[in-house]
Amino acid sequence: MHKIETPTLVVDADKCRRNIRHMKEKADRSNTALRPHFKTHQSPAVGEWFREFGVTKITVSSLKMAEFFASHNWDDIMVAFPLNIREMNRVNELAAKIKLSLLIADTTIMDTMVTQIKYPVDFYLKLETGSLRAGFRPEDHHLMDDVIARGTSSEYLNFAGFVAHAGHTYQTTSLNDVGKIYREGTEMLREVTDKYRVFYPNLITSWGDTPTCSLENDFEGIDEIRPGNFVFYDLTQFHLASCDWDEIAVTVAAPVVAKYKYRNEILLYAGAVHLSKDFIQTGDRQQAFGEIVKYTEDGWERFTEPLLINRLSQEHGTFYCPDEYWGEFKTGELVGIIPVHSCLTANLIRNYYDLKSGQFLDSGQ
Amino acid sequence: MHKIETPTLVVDADKCRRNIRHMKEKADRSNTALRPHFKTHQSPAVGEWFREFGVTKITVSSLKMAEFFASHNWDDIMVAFPLNIREMNRVNELAAKIKLSLLIADTTIMDTMVTQIKYPVDFYLKLETGSLRAGFRPEDHHLMDDVIARGTSSEYLNFAGFVAHAGHTYQTTSLNDVGKIYREGTEMLREVTDKYRVFYPNLITSWGDTPTCSLENDFEGIDEIRPGNFVFYDLTQFHLASCDWDEIAVTVAAPVVAKYKYRNEILLYAGAVHLSKDFIQTGDRQQAFGEIVKYTEDGWERFTEPLLINRLSQEHGTFYCPDEYWGEFKTGELVGIIPVHSCLTANLIRNYYDLKSGQFLDSGQ
Repeated sequence: MHKIETPTLVVDADKCRRNIRHMKEKADRSNTALRPHFKTHQSPAVGEWFREFGVTKITVSSLKMAEFFASHNWDDIMVAFPLNIREMNRVNELAAKIKLSLLIADTTIMDTMVTQIKYPVDFYLKLETGSLRAGFRPEDHHLMDDVIARGTSSEYLNFAGFVAHAGHTYQTTSLNDVGKIYREGTEMLREVTDKYRVFYPNLITSWGDTPTCSLENDFEGIDEIRPGNFVFYDLTQFHLASCDWDEIAVTVAAPVVAKYKYRNEILLYAGAVHLSKDFIQTGDRQQAFGEIVKYTEDGWERFTEPLLINRLSQEHGTFYCPDEYWGEFKTGELVGIIPVHSCLTANLIRNYYDLKSGQFLDSGQ
Repeated sequence: MHKIETPTLVVDADKCRRNIRHMKEKADRSNTALRPHFKTHQSPAVGEWFREFGVTKITVSSLKMAEFFASHNWDDIMVAFPLNIREMNRVNELAAKIKLSLLIADTTIMDTMVTQIKYPVDFYLKLETGSLRAGFRPEDHHLMDDVIARGTSSEYLNFAGFVAHAGHTYQTTSLNDVGKIYREGTEMLREVTDKYRVFYPNLITSWGDTPTCSLENDFEGIDEIRPGNFVFYDLTQFHLASCDWDEIAVTVAAPVVAKYKYRNEILLYAGAVHLSKDFIQTGDRQQAFGEIVKYTEDGWERFTEPLLINRLSQEHGTFYCPDEYWGEFKTGELVGIIPVHSCLTANLIRNYYDLKSGQFLDSGQ
């Protein structure tokens, strides 16, 4: 790791592959397709690890990301964000090349869509199942009927199914709550889809989010799952109990730039432009922006008493280091940081280093 | 603005120029140099606006940013971040080309610095004046004596002065507190510098942060100021009263992607990957991730009752819209967002649109 000069995302490729295999096998057992969300890593190299396990279709969160992965030979891509009709030219350019799936989450855009679309695309209705973010409620059948009727009036638009995402699992604190969100959300999704299957027999149900997909063992009745974060996991998932410590596959390697013994604090080159400002609340109601780990021969190790980043500015991060660990840190050396939210961290740091091969990964950019 | 398809940073070049001129004139009146921090905008085009007012030296927060601006013909650059000795090769490459100023904030790195430096650089000691982030305390004179002695033993290293940054102004809530931080911090800075001027008569005092530089009118005794945010300002500065509403020179143009009347909420294409997760606390202890404005013929306008982004995920932002404003928003159209923290937002969105010229700005990348 002597080649690392600045904050770098260090991934453990073995752990990533294990996370992918685990999720893929679980999906296969339920006869459910895995359409992983690639916003978490945004890396063509990590994408290839998914291909090793037979993954052929993916999810992204923007049209730009879809264009990027299309240029890396992914040809079945869902943009899991409500269609932004200002991008219709780019939608057409991409739909001319690949199998593109789009989300409809609003009643008023379908006329523009029908008028401007020039190539076949699949459209899904976004269903709101409790996260209060985007989509139709199950009781909005008049709105949905109307949108579907207008959409299917176009020869290019195929009504393909319903999509839901349980973003509110991130606000829960117990496994029971996550289970409840899964049961209630997937039940809504299945009921609504079943109702429309009378007229559109090939509709599929597509379900998202890493917490429920990690904690559930059986996806019966769900045709497709779209978790993303699980390839890396992070401190948030660990605290939600969506993953074990050993499943976390990513750290940020951060240079120690100063030590201040009078306040027992160590200053790192790792700030909001690397980690994002996402935080977890610790027991004593303090904010923590990441947990410090020590790199070892073949991975990293936690400290018995967790060392947490307690202050973060644009490029600086600070952690309190008790006397017993003081000697373990040296200015100019690297420490590892388990990120609070690996998706936002990976969005900020595009240079990846694979701990197992000792190589930087091609970012494709 | 019909050319804008995705979240874009919309700047008002007139307001930026006015902010620059105002700060430059104030600095000139105090016979203080302005070395603006370019981390706020990271844009060569915005950099040129500074040159129009006679600015010739700049501050950045990483060596990479220094390399970037050196490639855009800036030849006097301070990296206002504690020297990271893992980057010594790049330090040398850059020091061979430009006048480079570096910050020393730790006692143990000077030996490496002295051994490895091959071109002339200026070094400054970072002084800790209350923000508890980086630097020496005024009482650490033995440590400072030692670092200076070792540094000046190298023919390439010029001890140039002391640097302080009052990051803790961002935690204050009153103008009095900001004034107090300025007075106490600059007094420390001047006292320490004066003591060392007996041996090094040409030392300069360099002071940072936008709140104090915006609110103070006289920088007597300070040789150089390094504010950055003031070129754009933002919601944080407005709530600190560092700026007036009309001085805020930047918004994020965000497409409306859905409207949900049953909960009076509007969904925007603008999330944590555009705005960052920085927030302000509103009166009722809610988090706000930005304030909505309406674009007009030649700028933008606030709503009488502030409309605030209340939820933010990776790509989505939501705001509550009361009935009286409901008709003002239409799916597919753009709204403006005053960002909470313009530096982090500009770090995330690199496509800039100049409202006054109607052109996208060259990002230099």
